[in-house]
Amino acid sequence: MITLASDFGTPYPATMKGVILRQCDARLVDIAHDFPRQDVRAAAFWLREVLPEFPPATHLVVVDPGVGTDRAAVVVEAGDHRIVAPDNGVALPAARRIVDDDEEIEVYEVAYDDDETASNTFHGRDVFAPAAARVHEVDEVAHADDVTPVDDWVDLTFPEPIRDEDAATGEVLVVDDFGNTITNIPGHVLDGHTSVRVNDEFAPVEDAYAARDPGERLVTVGSHGYVEFAVNQGRGDEAFDLTVGDAVDLDW
Amino acid sequence: MITLASDFGTPYPATMKGVILRQCDARLVDIAHDFPRQDVRAAAFWLREVLPEFPPATHLVVVDPGVGTDRAAVVVEAGDHRIVAPDNGVALPAARRIVDDDEEIEVYEVAYDDDETASNTFHGRDVFAPAAARVHEVDEVAHADDVTPVDDWVDLTFPEPIRDEDAATGEVLVVDDFGNTITNIPGHVLDGHTSVRVNDEFAPVEDAYAARDPGERLVTVGSHGYVEFAVNQGRGDEAFDLTVGDAVDLDW
Amino acid sequence: MITLASDFGTPYPATMKGVILRQCDARLVDIAHDFPRQDVRAAAFWLREVLPEFPPATHLVVVDPGVGTDRAAVVVEAGDHRIVAPDNGVALPAARRIVDDDEEIEVYEVAYDDDETASNTFHGRDVFAPAAARVHEVDEVAHADDVTPVDDWVDLTFPEPIRDEDAATGEVLVVDDFGNTITNIPGHVLDGHTSVRVNDEFAPVEDAYAARDPGERLVTVGSHGYVEFAVNQGRGDEAFDLTVGDAVDLDW
Repeated sequence: MITLASDFGTPYPATMKGVILRQCDARLVDIAHDFPRQDVRAAAFWLREVLPEFPPATHLVVVDPGVGTDRAAVVVEAGDHRIVAPDNGVALPAARRIVDDDEEIEVYEVAYDDDETASNTFHGRDVFAPAAARVHEVDEVAHADDVTPVDDWVDLTFPEPIRDEDAATGEVLVVDDFGNTITNIPGHVLDGHTSVRVNDEFAPVEDAYAARDPGERLVTVGSHGYVEFAVNQGRGDEAFDLTVGDAVDLDW
Repeated sequence: MITLASDFGTPYPATMKGVILRQCDARLVDIAHDFPRQDVRAAAFWLREVLPEFPPATHLVVVDPGVGTDRAAVVVEAGDHRIVAPDNGVALPAARRIVDDDEEIEVYEVAYDDDETASNTFHGRDVFAPAAARVHEVDEVAHADDVTPVDDWVDLTFPEPIRDEDAATGEVLVVDDFGNTITNIPGHVLDGHTSVRVNDEFAPVEDAYAARDPGERLVTVGSHGYVEFAVNQGRGDEAFDLTVGDAVDLDW
Repeated sequence: MITLASDFGTPYPATMKGVILRQCDARLVDIAHDFPRQDVRAAAFWLREVLPEFPPATHLVVVDPGVGTDRAAVVVEAGDHRIVAPDNGVALPAARRIVDDDEEIEVYEVAYDDDETASNTFHGRDVFAPAAARVHEVDEVAHADDVTPVDDWVDLTFPEPIRDEDAATGEVLVVDDFGNTITNIPGHVLDGHTSVRVNDEFAPVEDAYAARDPGERLVTVGSHGYVEFAVNQGRGDEAFDLTVGDAVDLDW
């Protein structure tokens, strides 16, 4: 199985599928192709949520603001999962979520000939899709052509919230398609509270969106385990006036 | 085969696919994941159009404004089709279209442990996807774990138009991505007419969009068999100033 | 394998998949279903880029402003590829890209009964999807039911740019989802230049988007081999104030 994720919209993902299917017969599953454009951190967040839900697979990820520069292409191996991606850290949060111990993560560099075979604008087609097909076909990543273990790669971690007994300061990491506004503050800070102050304004803490009337705002623990600002049948980002990267002060 | 339909956008449908593929090896086919948000009736309309076109399958449907409340999860069995969905009626119009006789529809409740294993915000991942995989794997729905026949469930029917000899009053049920504005008025009321009045303004009746010049409006019978307001190569909803739920007076 | 491409949005492509899967067991791969509405030339451009990347397949293409008129339905055979589409030229640029010699292209007409079995508004479901399934199932296109070789069909070619030694005049063919603005001017006219004038304003020529700072504009050779106007991590169409069909004067 090869999954595909990108910020490509259409029809470029289909080009990658054609390239893969010329090389191998893998089942293909789309993760998403509308990740926020060239937002490596947002893609890393969603991949951490989604990829660990899959059975062992090769995951092709192309969110790649550095295409055409000298950034490397890598395969990140985490347990039975292999993530083929640009070396910009996008794969690392998912890899760490998949394994019990960071030591189990291995990273390989994918060699490619920028001058000869790869365009400078579409490495998804010219570098990453062929590499995903090669990696899919082998028992051991190291057996794939043009793939070499490396000790040095680009990492990516999410900012840690600052917490004390009656407050937490964090940041909006992503906003989902519903408008649910997801922070880096762990959900258990809400335990035992029926309301909290969000940037100085009170909002109720609820277990479910539908606990409030349609159109009303609430603070909840999202399916990912983080504090999330939402509106029942509406958009939390608009009601709380928050967007990706905004600081969030929570106190109770 | 398992089909998937939701109002989730991305990447949440991929999470459901991962959960399913960890449990079974079904072919997966997307119906749509951009149904109008939390609009159970619109989803029910589209599912009635699309699901009967499929060979026997398990259909996973999550349009679920009641997630986290005590609404049940159900499997609606209609002939060789099984629709796994929240108990809000979304599956029933499709089920009735699939069978010849409503008596052939059976409904089962899916037990789940809200406190232990299910989040209150993402039952697609925690309840419906696992249930779809379990139902897919068995010969008889009743053989699936945590599934029990029930006599009582939430139904959903579309409003009936009011008709007399020279007029019909109905309602806009959905607007498709082209802007075609689809009512609950059966298409045969247009038989023999070359124009009708729509909310007091005349419009021509045509067999095909291209029967009018680009940009011109028309009334036609859509592929679903209902009266539809359209513009050749344009948007009928804008030209007729109609949106979902609006009343429509037709006379001739 | 059957690929699917259309301007349908959702959920109509799923209806076509259901129809196909009732008839055969083909692997299904989506190309795109958000091609610009009823823009045959844009669809033809993208299909020319994408379809040749696939292994031999049947390709179902429905961008069909003439649905319900007397335009024919065709199968365009190019090497081991078969493209089932309306007879409006949408398949021809892809077919020519697939073969070495235009003489290898064969075109067949698909008979259908407009009065009996086909709606006038959804030939994707009623004509093209069933034809794609029939064509997928046979060794030779001519062996499929209701398919007849023809000598006459609608062609489509892209406009040729006008070039002299120090200038080229072309046209914007398509804008991709990133805002990259793609012309019909072959990329090699940029060879040896570090900047060019685009409609009288200078812009730098670069090998890669990331060669400029984020937000800065550039002229490059896109992955399709044509001159393209772009902004690193931004939208080229907005920065260059260009849209599909606009004339482009390039000089150096």
